[in-house]
Order: sequence, then structure tokens, then C-alpha cells
Amino acid sequence: MMIVVMKDDAGVKQVSAVLKKIQELGFEPHLSKGEKKTIIGMVGNDKKVDPEVFAVLPGVENVVPILKPFKLASREFKKEPTIVSVNGCRIGGEKIVVMAGPCAVESRDQVLVAAEVVARAGAKILRGGAFKPRTSPYSFQGMGEEGLKILREAADITGLGVVTEVMSPDKVELVAYYADILQIGTRNMQNYSLLEAVGKSTKPVLLKRGMMSTIEELLMAAEYILSNGNPNVILCERGIRSFEKYTRNTLDISAIPIIKKLSHLPVIVDPSHATGQRDLVAPTSLAAVAAGTDALIIEMHPEPEKAMSDGAQSLHPEELEALMINLKKVAEAVGRSI
Amino acid sequence: MMIVVMKDDAGVKQVSAVLKKIQELGFEPHLSKGEKKTIIGMVGNDKKVDPEVFAVLPGVENVVPILKPFKLASREFKKEPTIVSVNGCRIGGEKIVVMAGPCAVESRDQVLVAAEVVARAGAKILRGGAFKPRTSPYSFQGMGEEGLKILREAADITGLGVVTEVMSPDKVELVAYYADILQIGTRNMQNYSLLEAVGKSTKPVLLKRGMMSTIEELLMAAEYILSNGNPNVILCERGIRSFEKYTRNTLDISAIPIIKKLSHLPVIVDPSHATGQRDLVAPTSLAAVAAGTDALIIEMHPEPEKAMSDGAQSLHPEELEALMINLKKVAEAVGRSI
Amino acid sequence: MMIVVMKDDAGVKQVSAVLKKIQELGFEPHLSKGEKKTIIGMVGNDKKVDPEVFAVLPGVENVVPILKPFKLASREFKKEPTIVSVNGCRIGGEKIVVMAGPCAVESRDQVLVAAEVVARAGAKILRGGAFKPRTSPYSFQGMGEEGLKILREAADITGLGVVTEVMSPDKVELVAYYADILQIGTRNMQNYSLLEAVGKSTKPVLLKRGMMSTIEELLMAAEYILSNGNPNVILCERGIRSFEKYTRNTLDISAIPIIKKLSHLPVIVDPSHATGQRDLVAPTSLAAVAAGTDALIIEMHPEPEKAMSDGAQSLHPEELEALMINLKKVAEAVGRSI
Amino acid sequence: MMIVVMKDDAGVKQVSAVLKKIQELGFEPHLSKGEKKTIIGMVGNDKKVDPEVFAVLPGVENVVPILKPFKLASREFKKEPTIVSVNGCRIGGEKIVVMAGPCAVESRDQVLVAAEVVARAGAKILRGGAFKPRTSPYSFQGMGEEGLKILREAADITGLGVVTEVMSPDKVELVAYYADILQIGTRNMQNYSLLEAVGKSTKPVLLKRGMMSTIEELLMAAEYILSNGNPNVILCERGIRSFEKYTRNTLDISAIPIIKKLSHLPVIVDPSHATGQRDLVAPTSLAAVAAGTDALIIEMHPEPEKAMSDGAQSLHPEELEALMINLKKVAEAVGRSI
Repeated sequence: MMIVVMKDDAGVKQVSAVLKKIQELGFEPHLSKGEKKTIIGMVGNDKKVDPEVFAVLPGVENVVPILKPFKLASREFKKEPTIVSVNGCRIGGEKIVVMAGPCAVESRDQVLVAAEVVARAGAKILRGGAFKPRTSPYSFQGMGEEGLKILREAADITGLGVVTEVMSPDKVELVAYYADILQIGTRNMQNYSLLEAVGKSTKPVLLKRGMMSTIEELLMAAEYILSNGNPNVILCERGIRSFEKYTRNTLDISAIPIIKKLSHLPVIVDPSHATGQRDLVAPTSLAAVAAGTDALIIEMHPEPEKAMSDGAQSLHPEELEALMINLKKVAEAVGRSI
Repeated sequence: MMIVVMKDDAGVKQVSAVLKKIQELGFEPHLSKGEKKTIIGMVGNDKKVDPEVFAVLPGVENVVPILKPFKLASREFKKEPTIVSVNGCRIGGEKIVVMAGPCAVESRDQVLVAAEVVARAGAKILRGGAFKPRTSPYSFQGMGEEGLKILREAADITGLGVVTEVMSPDKVELVAYYADILQIGTRNMQNYSLLEAVGKSTKPVLLKRGMMSTIEELLMAAEYILSNGNPNVILCERGIRSFEKYTRNTLDISAIPIIKKLSHLPVIVDPSHATGQRDLVAPTSLAAVAAGTDALIIEMHPEPEKAMSDGAQSLHPEELEALMINLKKVAEAVGRSI
Repeated sequence: MMIVVMKDDAGVKQVSAVLKKIQELGFEPHLSKGEKKTIIGMVGNDKKVDPEVFAVLPGVENVVPILKPFKLASREFKKEPTIVSVNGCRIGGEKIVVMAGPCAVESRDQVLVAAEVVARAGAKILRGGAFKPRTSPYSFQGMGEEGLKILREAADITGLGVVTEVMSPDKVELVAYYADILQIGTRNMQNYSLLEAVGKSTKPVLLKRGMMSTIEELLMAAEYILSNGNPNVILCERGIRSFEKYTRNTLDISAIPIIKKLSHLPVIVDPSHATGQRDLVAPTSLAAVAAGTDALIIEMHPEPEKAMSDGAQSLHPEELEALMINLKKVAEAVGRSI
Repeated sequence: MMIVVMKDDAGVKQVSAVLKKIQELGFEPHLSKGEKKTIIGMVGNDKKVDPEVFAVLPGVENVVPILKPFKLASREFKKEPTIVSVNGCRIGGEKIVVMAGPCAVESRDQVLVAAEVVARAGAKILRGGAFKPRTSPYSFQGMGEEGLKILREAADITGLGVVTEVMSPDKVELVAYYADILQIGTRNMQNYSLLEAVGKSTKPVLLKRGMMSTIEELLMAAEYILSNGNPNVILCERGIRSFEKYTRNTLDISAIPIIKKLSHLPVIVDPSHATGQRDLVAPTSLAAVAAGTDALIIEMHPEPEKAMSDGAQSLHPEELEALMINLKKVAEAVGRSI
């Protein structure tokens, strides 16, 4: 459904051309002529039509799409919430799931210690990067497959699931072999080759919002994965770029209830990348739970002072433990549990 | 304190000129020469120096200020939190204060009903605009002094305090006569004539963050009020402008803990203007309490369907009552009360 | 003219309520029912209606305004361009006008020298601030009326016009006494009391775009001035706030042709504040002329190294002279002159 | 080179730890102690050090990097401008190069006609997408290899070069077989696997700035390509995302002189994607030439009304011809030619 607004000086011929085009596409046109403006509504079936089809016609001032551009991701398409089951925990249900771990896999020792801390604190999924997207080609790029093996081993020992990033289509199979959840990073949210590749995988996908992408674009990116056959998509709000400089990004807390309204997919928040500062992780995590998040993904390092990346935003083990206690209280206050 | 970074090709003369300038200003220069770069630190007393003094000198590439530009508003200046007392409630203390009421004063009846709802729900301050800043000169501009009288009467009947906006220096005295808190709107955050005028008033000031302003600029605006003699400033996060389109503005939830860290002044959140949508007010209000806000200012209208402005973001009376119950639970979960 | 989009589950009663409201307002409703959505067009006369009137009705999902919210500022209202005559030069005509001078009036000597440089270079208007809006209350705030007198004297000696900022309604008369053009600064673009005050003045107004305001908001601010009776408004693009950090602001070069299309008012560009760097002033000034600007306002200081503000972005006298020569070449290349 | 700013309450031990770390890394520490703050400069060799190494140490408030994070892309590394030779034209030299053609390859006929128009107008490179990144999985995704063949054939007939997008590492070889310049799209600017793949190619790369990326991030992305062995990188400003809604993106015109200052690589502007509107292409193209661009890439379609994508921003053939004439005039006005 769409509305075509004609220019003030559009002639009869131009209006007719729009009406004809609508009928050709199998829709019904509704003409409204005002003193100044003529507008034409296009109603009918559920078929998606590109607004450009009309925008390029002579005499057209503007085209206003009324239906949302995503379908499989929409709440209208599927009323009941999608629950993604990973390693015995259900993401998107009543229970809030916590994922935690270091930014990057740096060594076997580091990850084994981290996994123990994570499990003891009551988190269910271990996070950690083996393939790292870095702004600089001179920064540490991750341990690769060796890192994946370490994650798997640590998770198996402690009974956790594993979420880790995949950066290119040809690595999807490899990462899916070791991980329980495939993460698509913020810089790759619109890497369509990669979205198609994880869409063909059977492993759940954690899709991070682009740091300057709208919620609608996030849902369209999810649509790529869903339309390629993978129904298990988890959407992650991780902060957007704004003019404010005290934080690395601006956590868009409203994205949680908005996505819940627009889509049936679970929503998760990454307070570590959203803020970039250790002491902001706790207040924003509590806020995310109060606002209705289904899960949290938090950076924790056994020794942040020695971290090869993101040390300044990683919690100390005891900070994670303290946070878990407070998260439980807020979860209960809003009728959920952890 | 400041660091002056010299250009790669800066000569001895240019470096000397910077050193001399620093000494003239009564500071001590610290020279650091690297293979590529020369930098000069300026240390000494607490006097504020404009970075431009150095930026304009030949051979200077960049000037990096190290000390924060605000002083009276800073946590370093005053360690203990400022508590603003209004009509028996203390804003900035352990108890979270709720302010509520319609966007605009439209009639005596409307405000009397609103005030009753607000008081019954447990809120302590009545909000309502008598002077309205509107994007269009053709929109309703408020009832003026007549509106102020109505607010005062309704507040007196119900035992509430009154917060209302003042838009120009020549109206400060008038508004202060009727109101308990003077509100500076988002579009006026850097209206320095107005800041100076309320800085000379004895009434507390609720200073809204400009929708396009950084936290540092908000604190600098507070500094204008404080340095004019008024210590009772309440800072209000009300959403910032971003590229996201589902919400009117993007609520910057991290601003709460950041301001708490940087400043001793109380922080309050306006979820109604931040989101612009009624059904987002509750989740963002709960999030704000979880993140540490000292107060909330919420739009509620006895009949939002008939509101002359902001009806779409105003709560119904029963929604405010329901929200208050949930706010109390989250407040307790984070160790506070309402 | 407006389009009301109903929610998927809106009932007959809710649709009827919208139809009735449209008729009450004196418009004609056009109903379009699709398989999924019902939309209602509102057509008829040119009266302005607030979209909120419908947004608050039950069952309404969205309201899409079709007509632009500004009227007196619009090209539809007045086809031929507005030309503002100041001191013998016509702003908005074929000839491009250059305004130049220091950021702030600092002394009589400084301004007399500056005015001579400006006049000799071929610029027609002298700029300079006597009342300075500063982020910090501790920065130099301007010389006030003394500064206005100096500007007037320097302009009279050199045959230039004067543009200078006015910051509060009660100073409009004073500034108008000395200046030829009243400048509204970027922080005051939505200071409605001030807009009304200059709207009642007979002096032309240079209205700077808010650093985070849309073009539509700029035109609405102009509408305030125009609707108060002052037809001589000059719109100024001066850079908007973005995430890019190399420049102080991001010059929105497209604003020039857009404003020319939407409005009959003259457009002017301020490359100094848009970029914040001296060596970017020339390329962006040339670009502005190529894109169709009617005028430029450029910061030039006889001795930028000694400037009390904006020294780093102020041209040296010889740089202004060199720039004028290149501006003339580009002006001729696009069929205009300086 | 870096400056470490210590917290106000940092102790002697914490300062010592920073000093020790600097020495361990092979640098020389410079200590500056003020009344309030202690700062430590790190000077010495040209080795890149991650600021995080210090940010994570206890007692550190802030780390300020002084050297730019890119090296091979920097003007300091290579003083003389890089000129990329493609099909007999030199991009980055005195002559400004125009690239033009349709958004997408839709058919052999369409491209043959387009190429003729492009060549006749005096442009040197044919653009056209065979692999199309689309926000919606339901939109036209391009003709693939068939499209590449058509582009090559049309270019060979008319004597033009070909620039076309490559979207995934496994397609680099294929696209390089047919194209003269490999285009990296805005959504893939930080797709590091893809950057590495084109870095290993021998074909020149046109790297589009991410719509959400800073100039520094653009130069860091170029660094990935350069450090993988490919010196022929062309940087493309194509508009950034802002809050302004009249244009699809905001053309950052200042990026041209800034990149010229920071880097030796050629800069090109895409006015079609920056504005999204046909009638803004001419004024912004002229502005880009006035500001110093080395080339333009413009969308032109033989019949924009029938375009499958970007029709509304594509020039008609006669508009391209008219624009070329005006571009030449402005080029000459700034001392260049087309």
C-alpha cells in the first residue's frame, strides 16, 4: 500500500499515467483531488512494490509507503514471540539470559578462567572473538580457528554455550562447527553476502545493529537471514553513533520496546560496546532489563588491565558477579527472572 | 591544563613563542620532543585559559584541553550531591520524585482534573505549559499569565508544586511569582540572556538538555545559571536528535550515570518528549529509574484525544497510576523509593 | 492536506470518528480501504491543521502531512525571489555579496583596520560581534553598545553596511539603531521571543540555521519573522552537527539549492563557522558560489594570532583578498558576478 | 606518540606503572605534574601503539593519541599525489575525470545506449552495477556475470573504462576480469575480508566512504587495501547520514580539501547518492569541482522513468551533456580542465 502525491502543477496526463501504472501492477487506485494537491492511494493485495516505480514518473512529488518493508520479521506475520533455544536456554522467553566473556580470545588460560567466572556468576553463554574486525590493519586480528577450539573447550568444561563472530561467507561453516550462535558484527549488518550465508546455516544468528543503522534497516537485514531459511535470529542493540562524545556510542534504549512491538524476534543489549566505559555497563544493563530486553551480552576479562582489546570497557570478574545480583532484583521487579 | 601539539615542520621560533605565551599567562611549560612531534604541556594553577590563545599561534597543529571547562557544576568542586527542595520534596536525594501533568494549560477544568489525578497517583509536582514554544507560529502558543494562575490554583488545592516553562528574560519575574520551579526548554538551553535571568532568580531551575547539545554543553549552560548566583539547578535529559526515525528523539540513557559522575546536580528524565509515543513512556521511565535518575517528568492528560498539543505522547490517567506502581518496584530493586 | 493511516485492527466506529472530525474542520474526507489498511485523505482548502488533531484519535496509526508547514516563506506563496536591499547592495539578485570582518569587536583600532581591508577587498558588508553568545560564562562576552558604535563608525568611514548579532528581545531596538542587518545566531534560531521581536523591526534579518536544525525548521523560524511583519529575511547555512570530527560542523552544501527551490528568500553561507578551520574557508566558499549561494559571510581578522575568539578560523587580510579574486572567477563560471 | 592523562587521585604507584610500561615499549616518558593533574607524554620512534595499552591501567583517566593512526595513506608518508591511471586517463592529476552510467545493468540495450551517451558527453569511465547491494532481499539484486559482460562490451565499443561494484571476496577475481576499477560500496567500507581481497588485486579500487564513517575511518579502510599491496586506491565521498531529511544523505563537501591535506590519494565525489535527487546533482557537482575534487561519478540512465533502481536521482542524457559544459567552466575557473 502506498500513497502517491502529485506536484501542484501536475497535468491530467501525468495523473493518468500514475493511475494506469497502479492498475498494471494489479492494484486499485483511489484518487483524491484537493484545491492544491492531488493524491492517489494504491490499495489491494499484499504484494511488495518498490516506491521508485512511482517516484520516477513525471509529475510525482513524493511517494509515501504505508506498509512496512519487512515481512517475515514482522509481528503481523507471526504474532507469538520467537524463542531461540541454545544449549538448554531459551532466548526470548520469560527468563533473561546473560552472555559474557572477553572481547577477544587471547590464550587458552585466559578463556578457561573467563568461562569459569562466567558460569559461576550464573551467565549461560560464553562470548569471545576468534576473528576480530579491527579499524586498523595493524591491530590484533584474532587467533582464528585456534581461538574457536579454545572457546569450545572452555564452554564444554563449564556447560556454557558459545557465541562468536563470523566475518566472511567462506568462514561460516568453520565457525558454525565450533559455535552455538553465529554473531554478525555491527560493521557487517549490511554485508549481504554474509547475511545470505548465515541464512543458509542451521545455527542461530545474533545480528548486531549497525552503529548508524535505523531499526527498520536492522529488521530488513534480519529479513535477509529469515528469507534464506534460518528462523533463529536474535537482534542486538549495541549503541548508535551520535554527536555525544562522553560515550563511544549512544545506547538506544527505546529500541527494545520498539523492536518488541514491530517484530517477534528476541532482542538483546550489548552495554559494553554501547558505552565503551566499564562504569557505565552496570547502570545501562539494569536499564535494559527494566525496558524489557531478553538478554545481555557483556564484556568481562579476568584481567582487563592486560586485555589486548576493549580492556577499558570490560568488567572485572567480581564486577560481573555483583552486577548479576542486581540484575536479578530488577528482573523480578518487572516480572521476569534470570 | 592544556597540551599544545606542534606541527611536524614547526621551527624553533614557533616553539619558543608557545613557551613564552605559557609563561606570560603564569603557567609552567613542559616540553616533550619526539622524533616526529613536539608537544608542550601547560601546567600550574587552576585558572581557565581559552585553548584558542594557542590554536592561533603559527606552527601549532592542535590544542588538547585536559581540564573540564565547567567548574561550579563539577563534582570536583562539590563532592556531596546537591539536593533541591521544592514544596517539601527533595530532588536529588534517596527518594525519586515524579512530576506529571499536561503539555499545555488549556482550561481551568482540564488542569484541576489533571492535578487531582497527579496527586492521587503519588506524584509531587504538577507540570503544564502556560508559555509554549511552538515550531509553527500558527500553532497554539499557550494561555500566558491566565495559565499560570490556573496552575497555581490547582497545585494549591492538591498540595503539589508547580514546574512551568519561561521563554524570555522579561517573563522570569512573572513566572517565578506563580511557579515553584522555572523550566528552561530544550530550544533555549543556550539562550544566554535567559540563563542569566534565571540565574538571578531565587527559584530552582529545571534545565532541559538541548536536543542537539552534548552533556558538556548542558553542564556549561548550568554553569551560566550557577555563576549568576542560583545554586538550585536540576538537569533534564529529554532525548537527543539522531538519525533513527521511529522515535521523536533518542533517549540518551547513559547521560544519567555520566552526569552523576561529572556533576553534583540532580538529574531528571523526560520520557514523553524523548520518545514522542505514549506506549514507550512506561518502558523508558522504568529504565531511567534503573539507571539512577533522581526524578521523572511525564506528560499526562485527562483526555489525550482532546489535547491541543502532545496528545499522542500523553498518558491516560489510569496509565499514570499503573506506571507509578511499577516504578516503585524498580526503585526498590535499585535501593531507592518513590 | 493530510493523510490519516488507520491501524490494521481499527473498527468502523474509529474510522467514522476520523471522517466526522475531518468534516467538522471544513474539509472533505476521501476513504481508501485496502485488504490490510484503511487510509483517509483530507482535502479541501488551504487552512493549516495540526496533524495531532488526528494522531490522538483511537485507531489511528499514523498521520502524514502532505502540504508544507510553512506558507509565507514558501516559493508557492511568492514565485519571484525576494531581494533584500542593504546599503545599496541587493542580496538575492544576480550579484553575489560578500560580508566579512572579525568574529568579535575587540577595539576601535582593530575594527577600523578590518573595515578598510574588507572594503578594499571588494566586500560590501562589515560583520563583527558586539554581543557574543559564548559556551562558557568565563569567556569574553563582547563589548556591548560600545562595540556597536565602533562598527557603525568603521562602516561609515569605509562605505560598508553592518551586520551584527542581537541576543535578546530587549536589545533589538538598540542593535537596530546601529546595524543594517540584525543577525540571529545559530543557538537562537528557535528563540521565539527573539524571532517575534525582530519580526516587528524594520531592519533586515540574517537568520542562521540552528546547528542541528532541519531546513524545514529553518523555514518555520523564518515564518515567525515574516508573520510578524518583516519581509526581509536572509537565510544562512552555517554547518550542521554530525559525527565527523575533522571539522567543527559539516557544511550542508545541498541546503543552498534546496532552499532556493522551497523558498523565495535569499540564501547565504558562512564557511568560517561551518568548518572552523582557516584553510577550509577558501574551498568551501568557492563551492558555495558554484552551488548558487547569494552571499558569503566570512571571518577575517587583521591579526588572527591576537583574536579573542575564532582566531583559528579567521582569514588573514591577504587571504581574503586572494579569495575574492578566485570567487569572482567561479561566480562568472556560473553566470553571476561579485 | 601519545599523552596519558592521570586521574586527580592517581597515586605514585600508578604513575610509576605507566612510566614503566612506556619504557618497556621502547619509548621515552615525559612527566608533567600540575597542581591538579599529572600527564605523561610518550615520545620516541614511529612504532604504532594501541592507546588501550594505557587506557586499561589503574589511575589513567584518558589517553590522547597525537599521531594519526594511518600511515601508508598519509601525506606525511608520501608527499606527491598518487595518480591512478585507468584506460588512458589519470585520476588525481590536473584533469578532472567524469564517470557516468546507470545505477544497475538492466539489459544489453540499456547499457549500450548509456555508454554512447556517456562517451559523447566527454566522460571517460562507464559505471553500472552487476552485483547490487539492496536493503530489501525482495529488490532486484543485479544481473551478475552477465551484467559484467555487457559492461565490458559497451565500454570496449565506446572506448570507455569500466567501474563496477564487488560485494564479496570470492567474486573479486571475476569482477577484476571484466572491470577496470573495483568499487567497494558504502555498506562494505569496513568489510575487512573484502578490503584484504581487493588489496591483493592488481586493479585500482574505488573505495566509497561508509555513510556512517568518519574521514579517519575511511583512511583506515584505505590503509587495509594499501597494506595488502595495492597502491591504487581512489577515495569517494558519497554523502553521510545526518538528521536532515530533504536529502538522502548530506554531502560532506569539506571532505575533499581535508582528504587532500591528510592523504596523497585521489578524491572523487558521488553527487547522485549524496543527494538522492536529480535536480541536486548539478549544483553539488559544480560545488565539488570548485572544492577540488579529482573526479565525479554520476548516475545517468537513458530512460530514468524505467530504471529498476535509483531512477529518481539519475540524470537524463541531455542533462548530463548540459552539466558537462558547466563543469568545464568551473574547472577552468579553479585552474583545472575536464
